[in-house]
Amino acid sequence: MGRRLINMIKFEKDEYLKMGAMVVSKRPELEAIAEKLHQRGYSNLFLTGVGGTTAEFTSMKKVVENHSSIPVYCVNAAELMLEGHKQLIRNSIVITGSKSGDTKETVAVVKWCKERGIETVAITKAETPLAEIADHVCLIDSSGVENTYLSFYYILLKLAELRGEFPDYAQFASEMEHVHEGLVQVKEKFEPVAAKIAKQYHKEEYQMWVGSGTVWGDVYMFTMCILEEMQWKRTKAVSSPEFFHGSLELVDEDTLVILVKGVDACRPLDERVEKFLNQYAEKKVIIDLSNYLIPGVDAKFADICSPMVFETITTGRLAAHWEHHTGHSLAFRRYYRQFDY
Amino acid sequence: MGRRLINMIKFEKDEYLKMGAMVVSKRPELEAIAEKLHQRGYSNLFLTGVGGTTAEFTSMKKVVENHSSIPVYCVNAAELMLEGHKQLIRNSIVITGSKSGDTKETVAVVKWCKERGIETVAITKAETPLAEIADHVCLIDSSGVENTYLSFYYILLKLAELRGEFPDYAQFASEMEHVHEGLVQVKEKFEPVAAKIAKQYHKEEYQMWVGSGTVWGDVYMFTMCILEEMQWKRTKAVSSPEFFHGSLELVDEDTLVILVKGVDACRPLDERVEKFLNQYAEKKVIIDLSNYLIPGVDAKFADICSPMVFETITTGRLAAHWEHHTGHSLAFRRYYRQFDY
Repeated sequence: MGRRLINMIKFEKDEYLKMGAMVVSKRPELEAIAEKLHQRGYSNLFLTGVGGTTAEFTSMKKVVENHSSIPVYCVNAAELMLEGHKQLIRNSIVITGSKSGDTKETVAVVKWCKERGIETVAITKAETPLAEIADHVCLIDSSGVENTYLSFYYILLKLAELRGEFPDYAQFASEMEHVHEGLVQVKEKFEPVAAKIAKQYHKEEYQMWVGSGTVWGDVYMFTMCILEEMQWKRTKAVSSPEFFHGSLELVDEDTLVILVKGVDACRPLDERVEKFLNQYAEKKVIIDLSNYLIPGVDAKFADICSPMVFETITTGRLAAHWEHHTGHSLAFRRYYRQFDY
Repeated sequence: MGRRLINMIKFEKDEYLKMGAMVVSKRPELEAIAEKLHQRGYSNLFLTGVGGTTAEFTSMKKVVENHSSIPVYCVNAAELMLEGHKQLIRNSIVITGSKSGDTKETVAVVKWCKERGIETVAITKAETPLAEIADHVCLIDSSGVENTYLSFYYILLKLAELRGEFPDYAQFASEMEHVHEGLVQVKEKFEPVAAKIAKQYHKEEYQMWVGSGTVWGDVYMFTMCILEEMQWKRTKAVSSPEFFHGSLELVDEDTLVILVKGVDACRPLDERVEKFLNQYAEKKVIIDLSNYLIPGVDAKFADICSPMVFETITTGRLAAHWEHHTGHSLAFRRYYRQFDY
């Protein structure tokens, strides 16, 4: 008996695996960037961008901090240009990315860095303003946020290995060669859960999302970029420890709370929220990432992979079900990129 | 003709000034802590706490970063204990505070630091668990978030002066001797605005608050600690640059958006939001902090003082009007500190 075949709406498995293979094929190129940066030497890393990129970098910063002593800063690109930063010096490396390659603030911050003699790295699409001006560029035209994580990990975790701080890098990178097959299985396992959540709660006007640690940036991203931007739903993202210092008072019989239980050191903070919700919340969903570990990937990499897992099941699956039930296309925007503002 | 007398609800001017004088009187004690830390030497500062304290530290981190090259980290206390931090070393200084002196996570993080031989500084109330265990303690039993800022500035900005990075410290500290009289005038100027906002919008189920730079931590705090915790109102706090990468899509004729225009380098980001709101938002409030500069304080300190100003007019005034109109006591909690969870 094989696994039960699950038909996932708006998902093309073959295309997904093909794109995954393309991203994996960029490994040598991305590692070469890390080698160059390591040889050149650097004082610290600045991860900068806007919107989804800032959110991804929030999680990546945590991953780097958990596995290396590289000083790493995550700063919104627009703020960085206006405020500057006393830790941003000629020997800093500024790392950024943009799916479209033309995000205004991201292109501007790279230009701003170049004027100051600060080296920049970008992962983006070919023949775009960003691809043209960054010092070190890797051209990747992928979808799926998990692929963004994987691409940057080939640089960031390689840097940690080169510093002698992440000796497991080779094993990690080797396991990533087949991570997309594993992620498909994770998606399939989550599919009925996604369908159920969207069916039951798509009419909610407001929902609170709670999470912590390495997936906190992604919890923020899902509320901001998917639910707010693409579905026009009012949301609140709050971290598990901060939940108890304000947002808990909103919990009542009408308020939907969605808790993401992580698989890193902060998990006890999520469990504390779970205990509270079980006592006081009527409408709640608990997504436990320990049920969605990636087959074929060593459990010791669970914290590193948890943003990839969270994204593959939410932005990658839950969003499609949300769209299906609300009838509100994920592609439709009132304002964003519709005109200048 | 003198200034028009304004009767501010739930505000005792004499008590406010008396408390202000008490906080100012702590200056030598707080500066002495800075002197000791400077002489001892340190690699970096960790600002840690939970809830309101984390929010205040978010703004203070920005102020320190704007005026000094001291490496400064702001980390939630509960996360810090579970994750540790590779930049937190024996030569770090951990700075924290708690109004009550018994905030569970804050007391625990100081204990956790001591076990690791890391020196701790706390500003808190006498005869409390926190006062008893921190290495350097200043006992201040004050209300008014502006007083929390002032207390910590006497340490943080003095440290910057000792590093030769903030030569204006003496002028700043001297002007702070009369800052509370100035803050009363600021409150009086804002009073009719606070009354109007609360009267017009106290029935809103949801409100979005937008701000940036040095007051971003405070915008977060007002939504979290006042509107959510004390008034049970659904909120979203979003920074001015991030607003354009998700939350803007929620703007319609029914959604209340409150924009705080700051007085620091990030002001153009707030102005961009203002321009957008003027075109597309029906229900909006714009609080321009340039209208509330503190009399008697040099304009060059506007960024440092803007969190104090924002707090004195919102947590200090708007909250009282909100309570007046909603009839929901700011003191009443469903869950917070009502029992263990």
